[in-house]
Amino acid sequence: MSAFPELHIRLPAWVDDEIDTAATYPTDEARMALAIALAHANVVHETGGPFGAATFEATTGRLISVGVNMVVPGRNAMLHAEVVAFMMAQARVGSFSLGAEGLPAHELFTSCEPCAMCLGATHWSGVRRVVWSATREDAAELFFDEGPVFAASYEYLRERGIVFEGGVMRSEGRAVLVLYRERGGPVYNG
Amino acid sequence: MSAFPELHIRLPAWVDDEIDTAATYPTDEARMALAIALAHANVVHETGGPFGAATFEATTGRLISVGVNMVVPGRNAMLHAEVVAFMMAQARVGSFSLGAEGLPAHELFTSCEPCAMCLGATHWSGVRRVVWSATREDAAELFFDEGPVFAASYEYLRERGIVFEGGVMRSEGRAVLVLYRERGGPVYNG
Repeated sequence: MSAFPELHIRLPAWVDDEIDTAATYPTDEARMALAIALAHANVVHETGGPFGAATFEATTGRLISVGVNMVVPGRNAMLHAEVVAFMMAQARVGSFSLGAEGLPAHELFTSCEPCAMCLGATHWSGVRRVVWSATREDAAELFFDEGPVFAASYEYLRERGIVFEGGVMRSEGRAVLVLYRERGGPVYNG
Repeated sequence: MSAFPELHIRLPAWVDDEIDTAATYPTDEARMALAIALAHANVVHETGGPFGAATFEATTGRLISVGVNMVVPGRNAMLHAEVVAFMMAQARVGSFSLGAEGLPAHELFTSCEPCAMCLGATHWSGVRRVVWSATREDAAELFFDEGPVFAASYEYLRERGIVFEGGVMRSEGRAVLVLYRERGGPVYNG
């Protein structure tokens, strides 16, 4: 019997009912709509914070993984939507990097601008492109403190080949944050 | 049957044999020696990269969790020693924050300066103090690219109450990195 726990990380049960895992998501709008739908459903089902993410093959639009924020119910501050989506994607492709030799290019779509941890995680993830909807400023209005991210952080990662695009379908992404606040969802920080 | 995997995260089997989980670690040196011993054992057992970490109650020195790098064998780029130690600690205290009301102050000791992801994770972890041994420059000599961390990153987190101290027992921490290189361990990046 180990002194240390074994961790089990599983997506909420509603994901299988509400997400079409066999569909392809050909456009940026379709991919972002999925990330935002995940965030919205996570709020409505009260299974975590107002954040959703998904990874795709860039060219085909094949869905590789999804993630939602599970920090409070999972008692695990690392379970941001982006981190969950990366871990699930790497398990699915069978490599620690979505940029491993022989794999097609992958992208992350997320309903809100990544925090410092998740932006750091993109560095190791192997994705080539990161797209978000609501901005850091939108999250800050809800008192989520996204941590130490600077213009230089993006510049550093761009130099290493990752493309970033923010504010795609921003009003829809922001609406999920507002909904969460209206429902009185818990806001946690460090 | 879910379309998405359930993730299981478990420390290597040698941890229970080699770590005294019932001991207390009263001094900074004792705490750092444990983090470095974890990194060293992880190299010798070939169970991951040359990095180890542990969390403690600040005052009593009670060991709460340990972590080692499990990126390559775990096929999961998020499994840095610090992230594993945080997740294990939060599971053990039963909260998403080691700074939750009613808990004593907690500290992280890590054998090498945190990368951008792990530094971002400290923001959410609830620890009050982070201490490392080998530096970012030592890691860079092995071609590990620690990501976008700047003086302003530390300043941001210090303003939110986290204390940072680097270079404690640096030569011992650095020696583990050198050992890993000499043994030809894999170096991965994004």
